[in-house]
Amino acid sequence: MTFADFSLTRRIESCRKFSSPYRVTDGAKFRLKDIDPGDTGGLGSEDKAESKELLTLGIETLAHLQDRLYAGKDGTIKHVMSGVNPQGCQVFSFKQPSAEELNHDYLWRCLKRLPERGRIGIFNRSYYEEVLVVKVHDEMLESQKLPPSLVGKSIWKNRYQDICNVEKYLTRNGIVICKFFLHLSKKEQKKRFLERLDRPEKNWKFSMGDAKERKYWRKYQGAYEDMIRATATKYAPWYVMPADNKWFTRLAVAAAIIETLGTLGLDYPQVDDAQKAELAAARAALEGE
Amino acid sequence: MTFADFSLTRRIESCRKFSSPYRVTDGAKFRLKDIDPGDTGGLGSEDKAESKELLTLGIETLAHLQDRLYAGKDGTIKHVMSGVNPQGCQVFSFKQPSAEELNHDYLWRCLKRLPERGRIGIFNRSYYEEVLVVKVHDEMLESQKLPPSLVGKSIWKNRYQDICNVEKYLTRNGIVICKFFLHLSKKEQKKRFLERLDRPEKNWKFSMGDAKERKYWRKYQGAYEDMIRATATKYAPWYVMPADNKWFTRLAVAAAIIETLGTLGLDYPQVDDAQKAELAAARAALEGE
Repeated sequence: MTFADFSLTRRIESCRKFSSPYRVTDGAKFRLKDIDPGDTGGLGSEDKAESKELLTLGIETLAHLQDRLYAGKDGTIKHVMSGVNPQGCQVFSFKQPSAEELNHDYLWRCLKRLPERGRIGIFNRSYYEEVLVVKVHDEMLESQKLPPSLVGKSIWKNRYQDICNVEKYLTRNGIVICKFFLHLSKKEQKKRFLERLDRPEKNWKFSMGDAKERKYWRKYQGAYEDMIRATATKYAPWYVMPADNKWFTRLAVAAAIIETLGTLGLDYPQVDDAQKAELAAARAALEGE
Repeated sequence: MTFADFSLTRRIESCRKFSSPYRVTDGAKFRLKDIDPGDTGGLGSEDKAESKELLTLGIETLAHLQDRLYAGKDGTIKHVMSGVNPQGCQVFSFKQPSAEELNHDYLWRCLKRLPERGRIGIFNRSYYEEVLVVKVHDEMLESQKLPPSLVGKSIWKNRYQDICNVEKYLTRNGIVICKFFLHLSKKEQKKRFLERLDRPEKNWKFSMGDAKERKYWRKYQGAYEDMIRATATKYAPWYVMPADNKWFTRLAVAAAIIETLGTLGLDYPQVDDAQKAELAAARAALEGE
């Protein structure tokens, strides 16, 4: 029987032998020298292949447990981005705005979540909700505490323009923007909702709110089209991804991100001559210890 | 020739056919109905196996490009956590405190980075620096703007106590804490530094600062031991992981995280009877459309 055959419970149990010996829960008698930095938990260098397999299974188990912990519905982000080092990638899911967020302009909560240099930042929903759900249900504008004189017919056009302008600003400051619209048919959405309803283990994924919004399908489609027409630009393109086949959506989204990263000419940091001299000095110091 | 043989450049290029057709950079003539949600970029259902392979390679390419973008040194986090959905996992790397951070108490910058419920939060360094590097170089305390009367002999003991207390509070509020100390020998550290110096493609990973800190090796070892003795608790254990063999460190860290998640009895959200009735109503509404 190999590790791969283990049930989740057995897999978790079998982890114990690699973690328990190193756990310190009472420091009173702890001495650093009692633990050998070269210890390998009874595995020898001849077990390296096995240990690699164990780690792969461990990572898989970890991903599975974390999936239960988080219980998210957003399959595209999960399938495309699981594999990337989470240290260089941050995901924010924007929900209904909080009372604090509604006390600010609508870009505020998004702009403060932008990734720092060197990181991929993924926004699951964004300020585009402000010209989608808020446009379809325009009574929502009332909660945004805008001066009444600023809530007029041109509000959506103004928002498109402000969004384009802020995206231009971001681009001018080295932020690379890709926008994804997952284009799903009404029929396929129905099929997915029914699946979530019919399969007990998927019930928790069903959202009553999403189902109720189907009444506004045409209004949403109009809002999507208007939004894309007004905000697709060279510097911040929209990707309108066919979404009735999950496997294809994932492929297309991954392809678009790879292509975009590919345009950046990325390479590991280079070392210049002054730094090389420093490195040589450091080498001499280490050798001379 | 298969996709796997492609060089990085060719891989990036080959993505184009799955992304370019869906990119909108000028919205003027865009119509949603011009894009079929059922489109699969020329791939048929008979190509599903191939598409899965393409996605796997795509994810690998994406991870590789992102690695260049981020250029991080922390191999353990990368190797253990790449595979987890980044949507449910956030990593913060604490660097030297900023001017704003030094204007606050030392826990402030860490506590505000704690993950929300359902997320794994990884701190790469933490408030423990305040009893490590700050203790080894205690002149750093001056920059912390503490009232002088509070900087006395008992400061480290007080910090250990405050840290234990805050960790107890967090535990009482549902946050599960694991602390990892990667226990490396002085000899192995030297070997790794020399490797970074000798291999030009690894030069950028070499840190002059880290090399200079070797002078204080014994003081650091003392600080590590004191810290672990004072702050290892049942509710927030330290894992002192043998770190001279990277493959073993990764395995042991993964095992400890899995074991900890295993104790939480995680499962996907359950649906109660009231919700089941709602689901039945939603089902009827969808069927009746």
